[in-house]
Amino acid sequence: MAELEYAYASGAYAARLVGSTPTIRTMITKQNIRIIPLGGLGEVGRNMMCLEAEGAILIIDMGFRMPEEDMPGIDFIIPNISYLKGKERNIVGAVLTHGHYDHIGAIPYLIDRLGANMPIFAAGLTKAIVLRRQEDFPRLPKLNINTVKDGDIIKLGPFTVEFFRQNHNISDSLGLFIGTPVGNIVRTSDFKFDLTPVYDLPTDFKKLEAMRKRGVLLLMSDSTGAEEQGHSISEKTIMENLEEIFKISKGRIIAATFGSLINRIQQLIALSEKYGRRVAVDGYSMKTNVEICKKLGYIKSQKETLITVDQIKNYPDSKITLICTGAQGEGQAVLMRITNGEHKFVEFKKTDTVVFSSSVVPGNERTVQFLKDELYRQKVKVFHYKMMDIHAGGHAQKEELKEMIRILQPKFFLPIHGQYSMLVNHAEIARTEGVPEKNIAVAENGQIINLSRDEIYLDKKTVESNYVMVDGLGVGDVGEVVLRDRQTLSKDGMFVVVVVIDRQSGKVKGSPDIISRGFVYLKESRELLRDTRRRLIDIVEGSTGSGGAVNWVYVKDEIRNRIGDFLYAKTKRRPMILPVVIEV
Amino acid sequence: MAELEYAYASGAYAARLVGSTPTIRTMITKQNIRIIPLGGLGEVGRNMMCLEAEGAILIIDMGFRMPEEDMPGIDFIIPNISYLKGKERNIVGAVLTHGHYDHIGAIPYLIDRLGANMPIFAAGLTKAIVLRRQEDFPRLPKLNINTVKDGDIIKLGPFTVEFFRQNHNISDSLGLFIGTPVGNIVRTSDFKFDLTPVYDLPTDFKKLEAMRKRGVLLLMSDSTGAEEQGHSISEKTIMENLEEIFKISKGRIIAATFGSLINRIQQLIALSEKYGRRVAVDGYSMKTNVEICKKLGYIKSQKETLITVDQIKNYPDSKITLICTGAQGEGQAVLMRITNGEHKFVEFKKTDTVVFSSSVVPGNERTVQFLKDELYRQKVKVFHYKMMDIHAGGHAQKEELKEMIRILQPKFFLPIHGQYSMLVNHAEIARTEGVPEKNIAVAENGQIINLSRDEIYLDKKTVESNYVMVDGLGVGDVGEVVLRDRQTLSKDGMFVVVVVIDRQSGKVKGSPDIISRGFVYLKESRELLRDTRRRLIDIVEGSTGSGGAVNWVYVKDEIRNRIGDFLYAKTKRRPMILPVVIEV
Repeated sequence: MAELEYAYASGAYAARLVGSTPTIRTMITKQNIRIIPLGGLGEVGRNMMCLEAEGAILIIDMGFRMPEEDMPGIDFIIPNISYLKGKERNIVGAVLTHGHYDHIGAIPYLIDRLGANMPIFAAGLTKAIVLRRQEDFPRLPKLNINTVKDGDIIKLGPFTVEFFRQNHNISDSLGLFIGTPVGNIVRTSDFKFDLTPVYDLPTDFKKLEAMRKRGVLLLMSDSTGAEEQGHSISEKTIMENLEEIFKISKGRIIAATFGSLINRIQQLIALSEKYGRRVAVDGYSMKTNVEICKKLGYIKSQKETLITVDQIKNYPDSKITLICTGAQGEGQAVLMRITNGEHKFVEFKKTDTVVFSSSVVPGNERTVQFLKDELYRQKVKVFHYKMMDIHAGGHAQKEELKEMIRILQPKFFLPIHGQYSMLVNHAEIARTEGVPEKNIAVAENGQIINLSRDEIYLDKKTVESNYVMVDGLGVGDVGEVVLRDRQTLSKDGMFVVVVVIDRQSGKVKGSPDIISRGFVYLKESRELLRDTRRRLIDIVEGSTGSGGAVNWVYVKDEIRNRIGDFLYAKTKRRPMILPVVIEV
Repeated sequence: MAELEYAYASGAYAARLVGSTPTIRTMITKQNIRIIPLGGLGEVGRNMMCLEAEGAILIIDMGFRMPEEDMPGIDFIIPNISYLKGKERNIVGAVLTHGHYDHIGAIPYLIDRLGANMPIFAAGLTKAIVLRRQEDFPRLPKLNINTVKDGDIIKLGPFTVEFFRQNHNISDSLGLFIGTPVGNIVRTSDFKFDLTPVYDLPTDFKKLEAMRKRGVLLLMSDSTGAEEQGHSISEKTIMENLEEIFKISKGRIIAATFGSLINRIQQLIALSEKYGRRVAVDGYSMKTNVEICKKLGYIKSQKETLITVDQIKNYPDSKITLICTGAQGEGQAVLMRITNGEHKFVEFKKTDTVVFSSSVVPGNERTVQFLKDELYRQKVKVFHYKMMDIHAGGHAQKEELKEMIRILQPKFFLPIHGQYSMLVNHAEIARTEGVPEKNIAVAENGQIINLSRDEIYLDKKTVESNYVMVDGLGVGDVGEVVLRDRQTLSKDGMFVVVVVIDRQSGKVKGSPDIISRGFVYLKESRELLRDTRRRLIDIVEGSTGSGGAVNWVYVKDEIRNRIGDFLYAKTKRRPMILPVVIEV
């Protein structure tokens, strides 16, 4: 087993990979440790958490999330790390549970503020994905990432972190068994129990049992599926259903899924090989992931299977599978480009079969519906998850979550990862599994969770955890004001009026200029504009006519209010009105 | 049975309510009739269809739909009636299938263009809802609506329309059995088969059998549920599950649903009476509907049951049910106002139970999730449709749709109401039920469907059917350009630059003004603004400096392009740039 000695240059602690034999922490003190979620508790995505003991801080995951619907123009939202400002030297390292962007995507935006040299620990695939993404940020310093695997143990200050394999829908998902000064914490990755996974090992229940025997003070467990009844579908079922499609399809199979769904991509490659099809992979994120996985052995294929998308035309349709991005109806993704006739090498034929091997992310329902409609119009055969089980989520559902609690028998329970309703329902599951109510904490981002051997409780004080928005090169510079303006602009557009005034006479020179966008189509609104100009002149000359100093702030307010009311009366729309008054 | 003689003043045809005994049309000619969908085929909502025979036009429904996500500021979308322009005199009347806005909501916007005096036929509740809505448009002339009911037959030019009762989730949903010169058409309303409805009669299968015996040339059937497997849930099941909630709830029950879901409201009132609760109804649309239904007897309640929302405080919590709007998380609806602490009379208590007795309309998933989260934060008990069957949709699912085709044995089939994918899947259902492929037409809005005794086929020619958008008082004045501007403005905001130039010297006077909204927060971007101003002066003086006539169009383009590129390089954002250049 690998042995890694590690010294964290600017930090006060040393990280050391001490081997893979389980060691039981016995140094239980009366003190508290603190758990501080900076993201992912009360929302889906943007996962980041701090564990604090004896002044040392361990970071778990640094993910981003997609913006909400009322945040036009925002690229994504990252965790707020104000709390860590000034505490950088106390950070003993970061561990990453798996390679999905909601767990690693914020690294490029946070790492230089936290200390670029901080030791990061991740499994092989996770590390490769993080490093590949870092290439998009050439100005950032090199990361200090160390590879860990199932069974490895590292010591980071007062924490002993032991990694254990979990089933998810990307390889190398690692749960954490963390020895702390107050006791052992099990902190799951995103996980599900799959007794019959495909191209992955089944859950190691014996290892979980062994953890219980060592004593689990606190379980922090993935809540994403807590409102879903029953058990998640096994990948074996998905594979069988996908195989049915391969059996009956005579033309090309075009399978769209998430670029990060490595296991599904492997399934589709294996089925293609079984049915004598070559496989082209298209879509930037997917191609990148497949390249990484091929190199590291996480995706296996025969030598001649993978072809490039421009080679599709060299094979009969019955010998072709195209795996691509765009199952969410994203405008620039491959499936949409083929559908719109904008793809360089592929256009649909009536004999094609399109498989949506993915769920629909909330918020994308309508877009996916429009894409589906368009596929039907183009007469291709469509299979989606409502018709048969050709997609399984990556998260444990109610029965699995119960089982996790039954196996580990934790004294305390903290639901993590999920909207608040999911956390509450997961807490309810724990209660029905026998964890006493007072031993369950339901907490949100920014709350400080105190844990001792005897109790778990939330501080009244919270730390800053509001959204930090990324828009282009700007991180955190788009705030409430800018967003509210964008929303207003999007609803009724804008209306700029430019009035030039002769300083001496107080009269408006010429005809006021009007620029309007998103309000009415100007060419068709001559009368409205003429009336508006007349009113503008009245307002301005009414204010300047009396002689003496003119209060331009007042004049502009008058324009905003009175022109605003006039336009509303005429149109029932409220564009943003921007007066420009120039004295010459 | 009522007998109504009706003369359509400006039209060429007479409408006559001839009684309720079924008459079989025998005048089958070789000619075609034409079916022209102006909305609802290829989309959910905005239902409107024309039937044309012997130069006469019969209109079925006039509904609106909600805007799509990329249509900020739009209130709703109505059918495009360009096709009917100049043909107003040929319209023999309109029949309305039921009182939901996706079938009647466009009437106020279309009726005076089609002929305000046109005879409209609708069931009692539908008529009352239409008339109530018309009050919001006081300038419109009075409608000419006639009441019809199950079994009534009216003759409108070459069409004999016989109304038959269908189960939906509003009372008075009427299917149409239409005698035409080529044969009988069955045109369903929105419908489902409910063998055990609550406060409604079950489907009259004998009547459907009788229609088959009279011969069904064409079936046009509701496709909304064509992609849902199995059978819709009976209202009896919903009632039983709701009763479970009434049995266990000790505090107030706050039930949110659609304002138009009259049957559900009746169920909640009946359960409240059974469990000794008073009922307050809150939310504008819901209150209006309940008033109408009470008056007409569509909602029955004991005298003392209904109270006003301000009286809630006079009763113990265990004696109160509040039925309200807001189950979709709409910002201004009652449930959201209570949740945000903005309701005048109600605030949540921990003992409250909130019931979401409705589905989530696609596109509202995230909003509903945020509402649910907030309810959990306020510690109320929440029941929603994922936890138990407390909502049933109003549309027949796959097995019911099959049954409809089996019963009616139509020669031809045309799926109506639904996204294109639903129409295709409904067509596939008809095919598996034995309707030959060539006898099935899948058509979209604007396509002309020709029907004779022997064939059904689509014209190559289409009629105008693109969206007509309503925004405030404007109908159809918001087009592509305005919408695209709104989208651009919403993403990266706008940037107005005002440059005043001395005509004689060609120099910029003073410092250029910059107004920006939705782009960056100006106070925090001084440096960016300084650099922008410097570049602006360079661009302008570079163009004017050489003397001679200045091409201001060119200068403005230069500002747009070069300042645009500069801002993009600095921020990776592309605000809309609006140059204002003033010569003095």
